[in-house]
Amino acid sequence: MQIPSDLEIARDAVLEPLSDIAGRMGIGPHLLEPYGESVMKVRLEAADELAERPRARYVVVTAVTPTPLGEGKTTTTVGLGDGLSRTGRRTTLALRQPSMGPVFGIKGGAAGGGYSQVVPMETLNLHLTGDIHAITAAHNLLAAMIDNHLYQGNQLELDPHSITWRRALDINDRALRNIVTGLGSRTDGTPRQTGFDITAASEVMALLSLATSVRDLRARLGRIVVGTNRSGKPVTAEELGAAGAMAALLRDAIKPNLLQTLEHTPVLVHTGPFGNIATGNSSVVADLVGLRSSDYLVTEAGFGADMGAERFFNIKCRISGQAPDAAVLVATVRALKTHSGRFKVVAGRPLPEEMLAESPDDVRAGAANLRKQIENCRLHGVSPVVAINAFPTDHPSELDEVRAIAAEAGARSAVCRNVVEGGRGAEELAETVAEAAEEPSDFTLLYPDNLSLREKVEAVARNVYGADGVEYSTTAEKQLESCERNGLGHLPVCIAKTHLSISADPQLRGAPTGWTLPVREVRASAGAGFVYLICGTMQTMPGLSATPAAFNIDIDEDGQVSGLS
Amino acid sequence: MQIPSDLEIARDAVLEPLSDIAGRMGIGPHLLEPYGESVMKVRLEAADELAERPRARYVVVTAVTPTPLGEGKTTTTVGLGDGLSRTGRRTTLALRQPSMGPVFGIKGGAAGGGYSQVVPMETLNLHLTGDIHAITAAHNLLAAMIDNHLYQGNQLELDPHSITWRRALDINDRALRNIVTGLGSRTDGTPRQTGFDITAASEVMALLSLATSVRDLRARLGRIVVGTNRSGKPVTAEELGAAGAMAALLRDAIKPNLLQTLEHTPVLVHTGPFGNIATGNSSVVADLVGLRSSDYLVTEAGFGADMGAERFFNIKCRISGQAPDAAVLVATVRALKTHSGRFKVVAGRPLPEEMLAESPDDVRAGAANLRKQIENCRLHGVSPVVAINAFPTDHPSELDEVRAIAAEAGARSAVCRNVVEGGRGAEELAETVAEAAEEPSDFTLLYPDNLSLREKVEAVARNVYGADGVEYSTTAEKQLESCERNGLGHLPVCIAKTHLSISADPQLRGAPTGWTLPVREVRASAGAGFVYLICGTMQTMPGLSATPAAFNIDIDEDGQVSGLS
Repeated sequence: MQIPSDLEIARDAVLEPLSDIAGRMGIGPHLLEPYGESVMKVRLEAADELAERPRARYVVVTAVTPTPLGEGKTTTTVGLGDGLSRTGRRTTLALRQPSMGPVFGIKGGAAGGGYSQVVPMETLNLHLTGDIHAITAAHNLLAAMIDNHLYQGNQLELDPHSITWRRALDINDRALRNIVTGLGSRTDGTPRQTGFDITAASEVMALLSLATSVRDLRARLGRIVVGTNRSGKPVTAEELGAAGAMAALLRDAIKPNLLQTLEHTPVLVHTGPFGNIATGNSSVVADLVGLRSSDYLVTEAGFGADMGAERFFNIKCRISGQAPDAAVLVATVRALKTHSGRFKVVAGRPLPEEMLAESPDDVRAGAANLRKQIENCRLHGVSPVVAINAFPTDHPSELDEVRAIAAEAGARSAVCRNVVEGGRGAEELAETVAEAAEEPSDFTLLYPDNLSLREKVEAVARNVYGADGVEYSTTAEKQLESCERNGLGHLPVCIAKTHLSISADPQLRGAPTGWTLPVREVRASAGAGFVYLICGTMQTMPGLSATPAAFNIDIDEDGQVSGLS
Repeated sequence: MQIPSDLEIARDAVLEPLSDIAGRMGIGPHLLEPYGESVMKVRLEAADELAERPRARYVVVTAVTPTPLGEGKTTTTVGLGDGLSRTGRRTTLALRQPSMGPVFGIKGGAAGGGYSQVVPMETLNLHLTGDIHAITAAHNLLAAMIDNHLYQGNQLELDPHSITWRRALDINDRALRNIVTGLGSRTDGTPRQTGFDITAASEVMALLSLATSVRDLRARLGRIVVGTNRSGKPVTAEELGAAGAMAALLRDAIKPNLLQTLEHTPVLVHTGPFGNIATGNSSVVADLVGLRSSDYLVTEAGFGADMGAERFFNIKCRISGQAPDAAVLVATVRALKTHSGRFKVVAGRPLPEEMLAESPDDVRAGAANLRKQIENCRLHGVSPVVAINAFPTDHPSELDEVRAIAAEAGARSAVCRNVVEGGRGAEELAETVAEAAEEPSDFTLLYPDNLSLREKVEAVARNVYGADGVEYSTTAEKQLESCERNGLGHLPVCIAKTHLSISADPQLRGAPTGWTLPVREVRASAGAGFVYLICGTMQTMPGLSATPAAFNIDIDEDGQVSGLS
């Protein structure tokens, strides 16, 4: 059962020429821009050129509420893609681009694992084609133009204390969370308190992930609100004269990046917005291309089905106008055991001994979470398929128990072993997903645009989270009213709560009931196109640990990278 | 005489496939990595593979002391390249990558001008292949690891007040010059005062421009000094465990970028270090590739011959071991008139009316600067050629006067009109440069490694700047001693003084004498491999003006950029 390391497997991979892969997608060379040897950008014209082709089945991969153990959602997504390819279905994957913060911080990379990987993994993890850097540059250009506006006389009467636009860098650097800028002498700007977020948390990232065309990108950039003037009126990037230059900085970043899996399934990697204060979903444009260039388009949404999938349905699909045909819910025996609340599981520590003992009963005790997440897919009219990502230490009776729980909830299920076996280990899952996706779809948004923001939050909190209601802080109440007043009431809502529980309390496992969603703050991502509500503390700039992954990363004299995993 | 705008000319350009251009350089497809349509990276293996081929003539383009009017050094470099190509000499250009700070700040682009441009200009000016972003990322990773080291217990006993490593961004943002980081709560780091420099001023940029191989890059990164410990001993990036990860971030950035001129002369664009606190020269590795793939390699050094060319000779060539065969000194009638001190010239304002009147006498009155810069090339045993960049408003008698001044100083000269005429307008210059470069070269470094730092500074100040001597502040004295004590005495020196005068006073025109060089501070770029001395105030983070170029930059719905020039 011992398999080589991720990096070893990735290094041994024999890549297929991307132009051949693109060819199978119907994407000709005139629509491709090579970046190095094994990555290409796909021009947005591809979506228009392929518009007459049949639309792919659209599958979103989500999961039970994440546990510190990791459920293998990305590996399952990659395995499913390879499984669908192996069973004769032309399939494209659409994934988020990993941030370099965690690459050098926690884990040294994010490209799947084992025999379900996206390659080349070094390129994927380090810069890729520079999209995140372009977003950083656009974000910080706006920041510089805000401070320059204050410095040059503040013609728009922007209230410095109202400025919500911070700066961004793709790094884990806690020292940049809270800073004072503009110190020094009179010619060094206007002192004020601000900070940096990791670029994944930038509104520009969210905006790029939701833009449907270059024209739409340009318009959304103009609508970004950076603060208010002395009369409380929003001040936009357009008014500051920054939106055009920001768009110029993003002219290549809006094109999806084409890579491949170890088994040569095409993968569109594009954008990587945060999963709490933003959508946690890869880009609309990548999906628009993928939906016209394959039989199946499989995309992954961040965190559990209450988080990434809910935003996939109610924000991403609302904006793109595309309806999903199936949702895959990744579950593991160990996750369900963790959701039983019977074990104390800590990230980075070995599994508690007693969790490895055969116990379908412990699995059953954690069923509520899986059941609720199945329901959360159904709420949107989408057929759920439970993908049971099998670990070598799982017992057959436990895997059967997960299948039984799924069956009782009326959901299809399949066990997959693709991390060890590659796409072959996901063929059953592929057939099951195809069965679900080929049924007529009945996709419905959870709420219409014309509900009030308050009603929209209520809809998500009650129906998706299982809360009894919503409670607003005084600040949040005021901010909510101000959003409505400023004409943002038609936007969908993005609720930033913990991803570690369906509730707002990270400690609560399963499917908590009898609680109220506490909204602390309300902010608008007017450019990206949603209003987000902060429940609890959201960290938008991670820190490094005492032994960051960077310690182990190096190159040899041929430029070969080591230490990524 | 009216020619279309730079952007119009660049847009109408018909590019030659880069693989054909590379083919003429003897660089096969296995050594090329395409980035988008019209840019490729060249693998460093190219230099080894081509090692047996005859070495090109090596020509550096420098200038008289810059005036607010601009002398057209880059256009002359491009024109000379095209002129050499047209006269049957296979020629490669090696240029610096423009920073995006000025692109959005002052001038909206830097790719030459008129019919002497590097194309595609949008790509050149916006991100190119992401090298500068990679440098930013490597720079800031080290910064994050420094602050993390303090936060995690400070095992190396790094003295927070000794930390000289700041952060970097490729932007003009004065508000970031002086900041306090680590504010917030106990988990948000250790508060301390620091700031951001523009990435061109990063030591990582200087280091990448001077590295001779991947192995050398890795070693230099390890030697970066970020501050001292409680006992005053230098603390390095290697000790902080950051150098390997920084090298991984730079694994593609070390490969030169291949573009072309409007006339299809190959251009290696690579690195863009500051011209005051660093070398102001493009990379060693680009030159090593170019020197084996053409008959002529033409590179450009920053500012006047006392600045960029002096560092080209004494830092870049010292490290690369390559000897130049000729130096081109760009001069203009208007520059010499400005150096006469008879006119008040302000950047961005129209020329004073009286400067346009025919007056060889005013030209002659500014001759001292040109003469001294000719001497500065000769000091290093390199044949100078004066390139007179003709403007439509110049009078023939004035152009003749410049030629006469050059001839009196024993230098060859040629008038060039390539901005309006393209390479055809630089054929005379090409022939003249070839004549100079084909003479036996007698290149000599101004000082050997084993002189003391003080003696090295003295050598540059007296011989190149024409100073009577050097004066150190008490701080500078101590820092100089500390550099010697820490084993950095063998390094070359980089004197950061104003580029607007050969002296240390930006107001003084011509070739000032009877003055003393005031050294305010001494710092080590131990990784890059030089010690730099600060004379006067060096701005390492520019600001934006009241009407930055960003205001005019935009894209249309096809992603076409406008407003760059």
